[in-house]
Amino acid sequence: MEAMRVTYRMHVAPPEAEQRAEAIALEQTVEVPRVVVRDAFIEDEVMGRVERVEGDPAGGSLATIDYPVAATALDPCQLVNVIFGNSSLHDDVECVDVEFPASILAALRGPRFGLEGLRKELGVLGRPLTCTAVKPMGQSPKELADLFRTFARAGIDVIKDDHGLAEHPFCPFDERVRACLAAADQVADETGHRALYAPNLNGTPETIFRQLRFAEDAGARAVLVSPMLVGLPVFWELCQRRASIPVLAHPAFAGAQRIAPEVVFGRLFRLFGADAVIYVNFGSRFSYSRETCRTIADRLLEPMGGVLPSLPVPAGGILVEGVTEVLDFYGRDAMLLVGGNLQVEADALFERSRAFVEAVRGYA
Amino acid sequence: MEAMRVTYRMHVAPPEAEQRAEAIALEQTVEVPRVVVRDAFIEDEVMGRVERVEGDPAGGSLATIDYPVAATALDPCQLVNVIFGNSSLHDDVECVDVEFPASILAALRGPRFGLEGLRKELGVLGRPLTCTAVKPMGQSPKELADLFRTFARAGIDVIKDDHGLAEHPFCPFDERVRACLAAADQVADETGHRALYAPNLNGTPETIFRQLRFAEDAGARAVLVSPMLVGLPVFWELCQRRASIPVLAHPAFAGAQRIAPEVVFGRLFRLFGADAVIYVNFGSRFSYSRETCRTIADRLLEPMGGVLPSLPVPAGGILVEGVTEVLDFYGRDAMLLVGGNLQVEADALFERSRAFVEAVRGYA
Repeated sequence: MEAMRVTYRMHVAPPEAEQRAEAIALEQTVEVPRVVVRDAFIEDEVMGRVERVEGDPAGGSLATIDYPVAATALDPCQLVNVIFGNSSLHDDVECVDVEFPASILAALRGPRFGLEGLRKELGVLGRPLTCTAVKPMGQSPKELADLFRTFARAGIDVIKDDHGLAEHPFCPFDERVRACLAAADQVADETGHRALYAPNLNGTPETIFRQLRFAEDAGARAVLVSPMLVGLPVFWELCQRRASIPVLAHPAFAGAQRIAPEVVFGRLFRLFGADAVIYVNFGSRFSYSRETCRTIADRLLEPMGGVLPSLPVPAGGILVEGVTEVLDFYGRDAMLLVGGNLQVEADALFERSRAFVEAVRGYA
Repeated sequence: MEAMRVTYRMHVAPPEAEQRAEAIALEQTVEVPRVVVRDAFIEDEVMGRVERVEGDPAGGSLATIDYPVAATALDPCQLVNVIFGNSSLHDDVECVDVEFPASILAALRGPRFGLEGLRKELGVLGRPLTCTAVKPMGQSPKELADLFRTFARAGIDVIKDDHGLAEHPFCPFDERVRACLAAADQVADETGHRALYAPNLNGTPETIFRQLRFAEDAGARAVLVSPMLVGLPVFWELCQRRASIPVLAHPAFAGAQRIAPEVVFGRLFRLFGADAVIYVNFGSRFSYSRETCRTIADRLLEPMGGVLPSLPVPAGGILVEGVTEVLDFYGRDAMLLVGGNLQVEADALFERSRAFVEAVRGYA
């Protein structure tokens, strides 16, 4: 029987831990007391099985549970349900790791372009990449396109919408996309550098699938989506069934999960199809440690069956002045996202953007 | 300016609290440092504004922030983003309350049937309601229909799929729906009692919208969905744009949020359109307090502009023997969901189901 292996940290003492792990194995599959399971097929092919329970040096206990692949129905929604559906309702249980067997990798498929596909699209092979965002929310399409033009002239590789840009009456999606793509064309004509624009898809499925089609038809070469805001199953359908261009994943609403960031960003987003994964960097206004960031980046890049690597995109308060430290940490296979910090001096937007680009391009 | 008021608990000491609250107000809207906001329109109509910061007797501080409605674009996805998108990535911030202004209530709309619509559909006016689930996952459509028949004969009002029933090859959705609806018809012919069957929609948008249509065409009178698994925006589109029958909400994957359960179940699920809201009861294998459960039930029922009340459905380890205590707590306007406990004795399924029904029907 092929199994998906999930590890939970349980904030209970070892004496109770065995029993608690058994309870999780039931909760996540059959969701009935053990005595109710009277069928050999269900016992063997559906019910979770506790593989190991051990004390965690960090406190509490770690339980490793094998779930038969059949329980997941190889469906993106049911997969998340089996990993952490009802157990998310237990205050003292966290999901800290997941290992996917080959059948799940083959069914969910992961990135269509990934790190290498994005590099090819950008024509940038041997160095780290640069990224910023047009914002703040509240600006008109014209104002955002003006910002875009400045960032593009400075040579930034990828310019995305802020993840908060939605279908606002003061900045409708279609107008914004047209204006920013026109700005990209204009700068390409002037300088030869064509920045890749990733508009943000935000709304219900009806809305975002329409936005995707509009963006593709208008010539966009990537889009941005927040998987936890739109829903992981929507994200999967978007990547695997709808989009013909790369998809960048944004972390909004994702940190609220009592699933480790290493699992959400390092495993789930990649498996579901993100070609690039934005996550909050160490030393930022967010609280991720260096170790967490290292693990996320490693997991996005490491071999995973036939699944392509995703591009790691550290973000969240990186300063232009701090770029070299971040590059030292990640090396070449990363795209640095510097947002608001490029805009802190109203008159020095181009200069700060250019300094960011040069710091990255000049990185040995 | 109409505003949506959100309250956060910040685990920081009062001296830092003011600054931290200002940071959240920016993070959730413009997402740039304050100096970057140089436009009066953005300041007045887009940017969050700190209304109040105070020490929390429970520790830390409470910040109340007003967000201009314009920032939400009146869109279900962007609304969640403004409430708790990036701030979900801060370990020391929780979202503990949200108040919606009239324009958001009018745009999002809430339940289409609600408590009274469900009562009318069931023909049950003056008493609490009963609910159970066909499970465990792994049974065939025929086996689930046999279970259904027994529950229906015992007189249970609502019989739902377990939320883990997906598009499993051993139990395809269409067959399961046909079999359970046929069982409902058969028992209605025999006894005059027609149990309401709510099949579980589980998958990507493509899958669940197809499942919904199949269920409606087959004669189902309600469906079950897990909003946090499928994605809140999908849930909204399903309720408001797709479904012609009531929708019951299941809490799977919802407890992982660092949003208070009172907000997720009491406010968001109702606003988004759940006609009935399942949540985990106090004293169960989950850890919600009596106070939390009281607040959830109150919020589902209390006046909320023109938005209909939703039916509270406490669940998660209610025992047949404990029904009266739960009824004493909730009174008449609740539906009790007893799941696995009906099945603990293989030969007493009907008897335990009947005892559950009689305890509820006999409740004064």
